[in-house]
Amino acid sequence: MNKTMKKKSVKTGLPPGSLIHIGEKKNKDVQIRLFSYTEDNFEEKLIDINKLSQLLPLKSKVHWIEVEGIHDVDIIKNLGEVFGLHPLVLEDILNTDHRPKIENYENYTYIVAKLLLYYKKESEFSTEQESFILGENYIISFSERKTEIYSNVKERIRQGVGHTRKMGADYLLYSLLDVIVDNYFNVLERLSEEIELAEDELISNPSPETIKVLHKFKRQMLYMHKAVWPLREVMGVLERNETTLMKEATSIYIRDLYDHVIQIMETVETLRDILSSMLDMYLSSISNRMNEVMKILTMIATIFIPLTFIVGLYGMNFRYMPELNWPFMYPVVWVIMISIAVLMLSFFKKKKWW
Amino acid sequence: MNKTMKKKSVKTGLPPGSLIHIGEKKNKDVQIRLFSYTEDNFEEKLIDINKLSQLLPLKSKVHWIEVEGIHDVDIIKNLGEVFGLHPLVLEDILNTDHRPKIENYENYTYIVAKLLLYYKKESEFSTEQESFILGENYIISFSERKTEIYSNVKERIRQGVGHTRKMGADYLLYSLLDVIVDNYFNVLERLSEEIELAEDELISNPSPETIKVLHKFKRQMLYMHKAVWPLREVMGVLERNETTLMKEATSIYIRDLYDHVIQIMETVETLRDILSSMLDMYLSSISNRMNEVMKILTMIATIFIPLTFIVGLYGMNFRYMPELNWPFMYPVVWVIMISIAVLMLSFFKKKKWW
Amino acid sequence: MNKTMKKKSVKTGLPPGSLIHIGEKKNKDVQIRLFSYTEDNFEEKLIDINKLSQLLPLKSKVHWIEVEGIHDVDIIKNLGEVFGLHPLVLEDILNTDHRPKIENYENYTYIVAKLLLYYKKESEFSTEQESFILGENYIISFSERKTEIYSNVKERIRQGVGHTRKMGADYLLYSLLDVIVDNYFNVLERLSEEIELAEDELISNPSPETIKVLHKFKRQMLYMHKAVWPLREVMGVLERNETTLMKEATSIYIRDLYDHVIQIMETVETLRDILSSMLDMYLSSISNRMNEVMKILTMIATIFIPLTFIVGLYGMNFRYMPELNWPFMYPVVWVIMISIAVLMLSFFKKKKWW
Amino acid sequence: MNKTMKKKSVKTGLPPGSLIHIGEKKNKDVQIRLFSYTEDNFEEKLIDINKLSQLLPLKSKVHWIEVEGIHDVDIIKNLGEVFGLHPLVLEDILNTDHRPKIENYENYTYIVAKLLLYYKKESEFSTEQESFILGENYIISFSERKTEIYSNVKERIRQGVGHTRKMGADYLLYSLLDVIVDNYFNVLERLSEEIELAEDELISNPSPETIKVLHKFKRQMLYMHKAVWPLREVMGVLERNETTLMKEATSIYIRDLYDHVIQIMETVETLRDILSSMLDMYLSSISNRMNEVMKILTMIATIFIPLTFIVGLYGMNFRYMPELNWPFMYPVVWVIMISIAVLMLSFFKKKKWW
Amino acid sequence: MNKTMKKKSVKTGLPPGSLIHIGEKKNKDVQIRLFSYTEDNFEEKLIDINKLSQLLPLKSKVHWIEVEGIHDVDIIKNLGEVFGLHPLVLEDILNTDHRPKIENYENYTYIVAKLLLYYKKESEFSTEQESFILGENYIISFSERKTEIYSNVKERIRQGVGHTRKMGADYLLYSLLDVIVDNYFNVLERLSEEIELAEDELISNPSPETIKVLHKFKRQMLYMHKAVWPLREVMGVLERNETTLMKEATSIYIRDLYDHVIQIMETVETLRDILSSMLDMYLSSISNRMNEVMKILTMIATIFIPLTFIVGLYGMNFRYMPELNWPFMYPVVWVIMISIAVLMLSFFKKKKWW
Repeated sequence: MNKTMKKKSVKTGLPPGSLIHIGEKKNKDVQIRLFSYTEDNFEEKLIDINKLSQLLPLKSKVHWIEVEGIHDVDIIKNLGEVFGLHPLVLEDILNTDHRPKIENYENYTYIVAKLLLYYKKESEFSTEQESFILGENYIISFSERKTEIYSNVKERIRQGVGHTRKMGADYLLYSLLDVIVDNYFNVLERLSEEIELAEDELISNPSPETIKVLHKFKRQMLYMHKAVWPLREVMGVLERNETTLMKEATSIYIRDLYDHVIQIMETVETLRDILSSMLDMYLSSISNRMNEVMKILTMIATIFIPLTFIVGLYGMNFRYMPELNWPFMYPVVWVIMISIAVLMLSFFKKKKWW
Repeated sequence: MNKTMKKKSVKTGLPPGSLIHIGEKKNKDVQIRLFSYTEDNFEEKLIDINKLSQLLPLKSKVHWIEVEGIHDVDIIKNLGEVFGLHPLVLEDILNTDHRPKIENYENYTYIVAKLLLYYKKESEFSTEQESFILGENYIISFSERKTEIYSNVKERIRQGVGHTRKMGADYLLYSLLDVIVDNYFNVLERLSEEIELAEDELISNPSPETIKVLHKFKRQMLYMHKAVWPLREVMGVLERNETTLMKEATSIYIRDLYDHVIQIMETVETLRDILSSMLDMYLSSISNRMNEVMKILTMIATIFIPLTFIVGLYGMNFRYMPELNWPFMYPVVWVIMISIAVLMLSFFKKKKWW
Repeated sequence: MNKTMKKKSVKTGLPPGSLIHIGEKKNKDVQIRLFSYTEDNFEEKLIDINKLSQLLPLKSKVHWIEVEGIHDVDIIKNLGEVFGLHPLVLEDILNTDHRPKIENYENYTYIVAKLLLYYKKESEFSTEQESFILGENYIISFSERKTEIYSNVKERIRQGVGHTRKMGADYLLYSLLDVIVDNYFNVLERLSEEIELAEDELISNPSPETIKVLHKFKRQMLYMHKAVWPLREVMGVLERNETTLMKEATSIYIRDLYDHVIQIMETVETLRDILSSMLDMYLSSISNRMNEVMKILTMIATIFIPLTFIVGLYGMNFRYMPELNWPFMYPVVWVIMISIAVLMLSFFKKKKWW
Repeated sequence: MNKTMKKKSVKTGLPPGSLIHIGEKKNKDVQIRLFSYTEDNFEEKLIDINKLSQLLPLKSKVHWIEVEGIHDVDIIKNLGEVFGLHPLVLEDILNTDHRPKIENYENYTYIVAKLLLYYKKESEFSTEQESFILGENYIISFSERKTEIYSNVKERIRQGVGHTRKMGADYLLYSLLDVIVDNYFNVLERLSEEIELAEDELISNPSPETIKVLHKFKRQMLYMHKAVWPLREVMGVLERNETTLMKEATSIYIRDLYDHVIQIMETVETLRDILSSMLDMYLSSISNRMNEVMKILTMIATIFIPLTFIVGLYGMNFRYMPELNWPFMYPVVWVIMISIAVLMLSFFKKKKWW
Repeated sequence: MNKTMKKKSVKTGLPPGSLIHIGEKKNKDVQIRLFSYTEDNFEEKLIDINKLSQLLPLKSKVHWIEVEGIHDVDIIKNLGEVFGLHPLVLEDILNTDHRPKIENYENYTYIVAKLLLYYKKESEFSTEQESFILGENYIISFSERKTEIYSNVKERIRQGVGHTRKMGADYLLYSLLDVIVDNYFNVLERLSEEIELAEDELISNPSPETIKVLHKFKRQMLYMHKAVWPLREVMGVLERNETTLMKEATSIYIRDLYDHVIQIMETVETLRDILSSMLDMYLSSISNRMNEVMKILTMIATIFIPLTFIVGLYGMNFRYMPELNWPFMYPVVWVIMISIAVLMLSFFKKKKWW
């Protein structure tokens, strides 16, 4: 996650539309699963990756082809041929460093979104790219690896709970995007909790580690921003029904999703502002402690330096020093020294140094 | 209030439109009150929460159904069924972490606003979510808890003072929003008073506490901004009369409200700029005091260090040190030391250190 | 002026359009003066505030009703009734904390502007609210107190100098706004002079007072910005002739005024940038002086601390210390100490510390 | 140049369109020169400032009336009457503190631009205001003083080099504006050279002077921005051919000029960013040096303070101090002290202090 | 590269459209190469720079005239005459300091782009200007020097791989721009790697060198921004098919390129934000280390200064000092001194200084 960019240099010089997988290989085997349903029927089967042409024709109401693992270029290529996808779309599916976007083609719409997965231990999150092809009565979803996040949607389809079974492929797309966006809330929730912990820590006990933690949070907010900001536009395009693939009835749900994305953006901005303010607090707390230290040093030094001078004075070995022989000189020197110390302390008191 | 986000994770994985209350349970019992009035008549009654269907049909001119307490999901659900509200609207009413927004549906308009309540003791404010359903001749208002803020509007309806009784449900909506916006002025007034107090404190006696107070004010301004900024758009949509629910006559009042919201936004921005400038002042005042302390330390040390060297010099026990036996050496040393001190002091005077 | 907001809380809960004066009572008596003129005639009279209905009908070409003092709510209310002004307009006239704005009503246009008055002694400025009602052939101007700023316009009307007498009420409105905008130039001129003085002071002799002065200037720029920025929009609306009240011929003058407002805005922005840059300079000059002080302390300490160690060394009272009895040891110690001092000084010289 | 504003207060209270010269009187005598040319003919003559009506009628193809010096209000007024210029245009020509702008009137277009003149000695630039009136077949140019910058354009006209003689007054306007914009490149080139010098200086030898130089550059960039930014809009209006005065053929040249202005803006922004970054570098270099100084002080003090304590210890005069009589105590003390010093130094080594 | 501007002052005063080469002479000889191809045929030849008129007429499907080296003004001029290019276009080709732009002329489109070349040794990059003329069935490309970057495109044309041979000149333009944009990814990849290295370095071992490295990165990001930002607009114009030169079929590829440019912009912005955050981290790490140093100094001084005072006290030579003769005074003094040291240390412990 901490890498700003993934290796793209392997592609330089290749003709446009060359299919090369960019990113980690996160899964061993590619799995393709087909969910077909109408309001009354439901079917689920595992597709043999060597017989993709079996997929056609898609007759019943709605089909969801779920592809888990995208590092096998041949499978993606075959799938592209079966469904007539543009080579540039396939290129984008394989390149996992894309920003979220939406592209309308003649018969289908291509959507890229970013899934954030939060790892509690390292208090870090990673980004996965989710691609969707929305056709007239089907969706193809591409995930980088086997993932559990859509399990609730699957369960609802299997059991016919909620609206999913009653509505078209566009509503299914909404459901999948909804899962991704809801997941942002989870990540943000955990981040904001951690930031609040860091804030309390900062107020009670600021330490040099704090600045590194703030830096880490700032980076995370940057990546969050990068993942969410373009999604706003994606939702806007979907809501405006620019293709006939989105039905009127789903548009109201997309608007709701759009609101959620805006809300996430605002929370990200608020957290960034809070982080800035925390940095100010931290820097001023450093200055304050330095001030504290300086004051103590100055007080000790200021009190004892003159006293040390006095005792040095009467440590001189001159033969002719009348004071040395005066009987009451020793207690008098004590009185002088104590007076000096008291005077100094009252001066500091007046300066409000303690 | 200090939490950036409310717990939403409980919702992950549920089908869209699932009704779950997000937020604190702020009230024991849900109370529903119905105000019905025409210019000549006025009726007020408490509705039995188990017989919500009684509410229909709404015949006379204007009806205000005031719902206090939204944690009882069943009541909201029933109300939604009676008035034919979209499940997503009900979901938003129950989720008290929404940003202000307006949504036009076929027969009604849904509006979310944020009510700020200021607690003088803690000098903190809390946010309550107020939702409104504006129908042809009725308004349903949802408050998080029993609240007194609409009492003036109610009194005006009861006694027929002002325009309220003469105008429609849209004017009633305006009156309720006006109460909410007026309340922002109160909160801002108190905040700006406190900020000015902090500013005076900062000039006369800057302390490490100041930075924490500034941080708190900054956060409050962020939340204020978050509550007010989207309201601008809400007012804009209302003013442009995008639905037939808003009458021409009310539009002039909405414009006035729009101006108030802009004015609040500008004051928030001004206060944020002033807080930034205060932070600069504070940081420079720390630097200045550090400078002060350093100067005193340097002066004391610079004067006494050479003197201590001299007295140490004649404290050496060499057998062959001619000065030790010279009769006038002791007073001569005094003269030398006083000259050094005077020289140093005049050097500092020249440097304008005191 | 230094208050960000005026007390508005007195209004909370009142029905919209309730007339309450918000702001200081700046004048004892309200004075209303009527100027009526055509190209050939001119008449000026004081209106009895109890017989406002006398004002109608307004027959001859142009009428200027100048109201000085707005704290007497009854007078404003009567005037509103005579001229058929909307209650919200009257409310805005009485509330002196409004931002500049323009509102078109059926028969008249309502304009709010801010007059800045600069007080040289305190080097502070105060804001007065000027409201204007532009009707078909009349203007009503509302000032917070008796003011001299329009005296030139009046004189030109009285003596028939310039275009004023030849043109309509819209040109008169332009003339009055022109006075207000010209006044901004005066205030800016004085502020920029003071800022340049502060800049010279900052370069020659930076002191802790400087930061407070910079803070004051920043606040003043904020208020200036707040007063001028919305005026841009006001001018834009006037120039676009959105009502029939503004004649084509006056539009060219309004465009000129628009340019002036833009110019003022840019100068305000430039001054804010200069103030930021001055703050940077100040902070770095503090750091530099601290550096200076540290260097002196370090040099003195570094030179004398080893010397003091040496003289302490031979002040020890061990019975068996061979050096104490060597005849040339005392001068040798002097040579050693002087060598150390010279070495140190040349080290500092190399480090460019002096 | 260093003044943010020129004195405008002399104008307060005068009727709009009053002609008063604002700015320095930069020239002794006003000179008016007429260039008339077709593709084949060319004529150049000095105009008697008392017989301006001689200028009309303008028959042959293109005329350029060059006015050098604008402090003589009467001449400008007469010229305005001869060519039927609006009083507000004349007022703007005389007020040399205007921002660049373009105004379309019925028969002519009025353009204001800022000429920057760079003085190498003071490394400062000054601003001159250039005004242009573009008519059907003539241009009137107003310069604040006698200037050489148009000499190349004149030479091209005189000798019939380039397109100028073949094209209309609009192309002449382009040629003059091109000279002004090219001059910005010169000024920017010198400024960027100086900034790069300052940058090298900053890296090799940062001094308190640096911050003042940075402050000066920042101001210059502000003025540059102020002069160039509105020119963008001027070029845009010219390019869009909003008047019939600009021919299609010239539009392509104006687009080129527009590109240049954008390029200048971007370079100004880049330089401002570089200046900010330089300030950061400077501030951190101060902190670093302070750190350096502190470390040296701390090392010296930390090594010698314990040693001085030890030698003081054995300088005490107690009658019963067994160590004083031990024969090997003196060398033992030396060993102890050297060990302490070595230990300290290795500690600092570990801390990477030297 | 480190120069913000190239010398343009040589052009001041010349008539518009004067052809002068601005920039380094990066190549000895100018080489012009012609690639002509249809789907079935392919021809490649070197053109004699003295017989440029041979180039016409261009019959077969697509022609690519590749010009390497632009310092020979005559060749460019001849080429311009042969293809009927506007003098301003030729001027822009020769001026290598242009920002990326697109200009539509009647028969051709002119495009400027910036090629970034990264030099690993100096970890610096240089900018080359690439100009393209897109005609009905030809492209002319102008490079500043002999370059290898298009070799892949050439190979694909020669061998008929990919779509290039099947499509028109517009697709060839896309292929060339694609090479340039892909190259940005390479440069960004290396820069982001280096920035991450610097970040690790900053966290583990911050040094004064760091700030200079950050400054260098910031400058590079500024130049990157300057090269890429205007390209966004170029792509936008190409995508919107504003001329008939761009075919519908290529538009989808241009959209892909547009996405890449946006992605580069966002990465540049992210890196700039990270650099800012790194600067904050660095500054706070300086402050922290200063704090560290101060604490050690203060602890040593605070412990030993009082002890040194005590030993000085009993080094005084008064004849009447009773303590000096008490037999157990010496060990008692030791006890007192140790107690003071322990007390001090526990005080520091409480303050969490170690």
